[in-house]
Amino acid sequence: MVRGGIDLGGTHMAAGILAEDGKLLAVAERPTRPGRPAEEMAGDLAGALEEAAEKAGLRPEELASVGIGVPGAANDETGVVTNCNNLGWYHLPLRELMHRYISRPVHLGNDANAAALAESRYGAGKGTKSCVMITLGTGVGAGIVLDGRVWNGAFGYAGEIGHMCLVPGGVPCTCGRSGCVEQYCSATGLIRMGQRACELFRDTRMMTEAGGDLSRLNARMILDCARDGDPRAVSVFQEYVRFLATVIDGMIVLLEPEMIILGGGVSRAGSFLLDAVSAQLPRWEADEKRPDIPLRAACLGNEAGMIGAALLGDA
Amino acid sequence: MVRGGIDLGGTHMAAGILAEDGKLLAVAERPTRPGRPAEEMAGDLAGALEEAAEKAGLRPEELASVGIGVPGAANDETGVVTNCNNLGWYHLPLRELMHRYISRPVHLGNDANAAALAESRYGAGKGTKSCVMITLGTGVGAGIVLDGRVWNGAFGYAGEIGHMCLVPGGVPCTCGRSGCVEQYCSATGLIRMGQRACELFRDTRMMTEAGGDLSRLNARMILDCARDGDPRAVSVFQEYVRFLATVIDGMIVLLEPEMIILGGGVSRAGSFLLDAVSAQLPRWEADEKRPDIPLRAACLGNEAGMIGAALLGDA
Repeated sequence: MVRGGIDLGGTHMAAGILAEDGKLLAVAERPTRPGRPAEEMAGDLAGALEEAAEKAGLRPEELASVGIGVPGAANDETGVVTNCNNLGWYHLPLRELMHRYISRPVHLGNDANAAALAESRYGAGKGTKSCVMITLGTGVGAGIVLDGRVWNGAFGYAGEIGHMCLVPGGVPCTCGRSGCVEQYCSATGLIRMGQRACELFRDTRMMTEAGGDLSRLNARMILDCARDGDPRAVSVFQEYVRFLATVIDGMIVLLEPEMIILGGGVSRAGSFLLDAVSAQLPRWEADEKRPDIPLRAACLGNEAGMIGAALLGDA
Repeated sequence: MVRGGIDLGGTHMAAGILAEDGKLLAVAERPTRPGRPAEEMAGDLAGALEEAAEKAGLRPEELASVGIGVPGAANDETGVVTNCNNLGWYHLPLRELMHRYISRPVHLGNDANAAALAESRYGAGKGTKSCVMITLGTGVGAGIVLDGRVWNGAFGYAGEIGHMCLVPGGVPCTCGRSGCVEQYCSATGLIRMGQRACELFRDTRMMTEAGGDLSRLNARMILDCARDGDPRAVSVFQEYVRFLATVIDGMIVLLEPEMIILGGGVSRAGSFLLDAVSAQLPRWEADEKRPDIPLRAACLGNEAGMIGAALLGDA
């Protein structure tokens, strides 16, 4: 069974053809260009898919199904994208639009959920039946897979871990509230903490890395400086790790998935980050037979979105 | 189909016979008396069940199945109670023990999960397919029902919401960590906040209610004083509500169940508590079609444990 999966992002849409073994046979991309009519965008989604199918030596009709992961909330029962801020889509009947161009079954889902499904099935979580994948990028999102199936929430909004309160009365958040996880655990949050350290302590190597311009400081620079032992960067890193470990710890005691997977830009720090966070996760000393829940880095990279989208009809 | 359900608590075990319509036909109780041999306790569990069946005019063999909710972690696949601190049971093959006395299929589960299942099927959550039930008692626990099924966690430990971190670096917890939800949202937490207010402000009516003896102050007294407008009690209540709303808010953004149900002693404050907490929950003004998630009080009382236990094999 060969399926199509499209990862619809704010800047690019990427279509992939997924083989039974979880490998992508071919990929094609288009710019998203938000703001234009949804019909036009649906045409491009179908066009990217056809191009990918052609590259794989297939006709679109040979695909068992087509899944689309959107950066927002979607309802696969009704075929409607209920809320997609970045694209300005609210209650858009995307399945209906797609059927003007494609005659295959179309499934919709959230992109973070799709990525979590892909990682749990073919990536870091291969062999597990449950995982929570936390994506640490500009924001923070989560995909929840339980018993092999994505939990979307009653209305498609589950997984907004970035807007759980981490620090009551803390840093104001874009959502209008304060102290949200996103303000502390995103790349943006890490950069804010790094910038503050630079303002307080001009002697840090982070300043040098940023060429003396704080607005150029990024997450990679901070993580590199911490790895190299710059004391100010180490402090920032430790603070970040403490926040992130608190969030992951909460997922373990609340949901107890078989594995926690970290994705997104910050997760590229790899074992440097994972080891530091893991060291702060609970060890059940009182119950030696209670297994610790492992923390792993996502390993499918950008392909996770397409692979997971292709799996959407399946779970 | 008539089923048996046993709620095994630290002080009492209560067996009930559940009819198809969710009503209990009969109930029987025994003292738990922890510390004695598990075989003996299994005999009493079976005895209570037989007594209840007899009261309902049935023989135990007429029950489709028997479920047991335990105050700890249980694995229904293996039939083993993996961890039950209050009873001193670790990796106890309870199903095997029960089969010495009962020839019916025996299912095991966590008591909080069982109660959540009962409330979602026949109680406050009737008609919903997903809910999170939070029990506010001496401690704080949660039962998670998604798509009509209990989520137990990979190893039976899910739902330990009481040990999620609410206040980083906050009040030390019995679990060895600090700032746990349980320290702020349990009846115990409410009492601690009330006692502190009494120590600071001797003019509060809470002191009178407790007969001048702070060790006698209980949650009901604090809630009654707050309802009657005692300013110190109102402050304590508002602080408690803020903590609880933060936790419930987190469940909504992370899991988005169709409903949040509050159970346990503190939930008996009813609409006084529910209205105050609800007022602080997120309203999705940016998306008028995104439904608010309602908060309700559990309505099955102590029967939820038995009803849910009887349903365990079913979900």
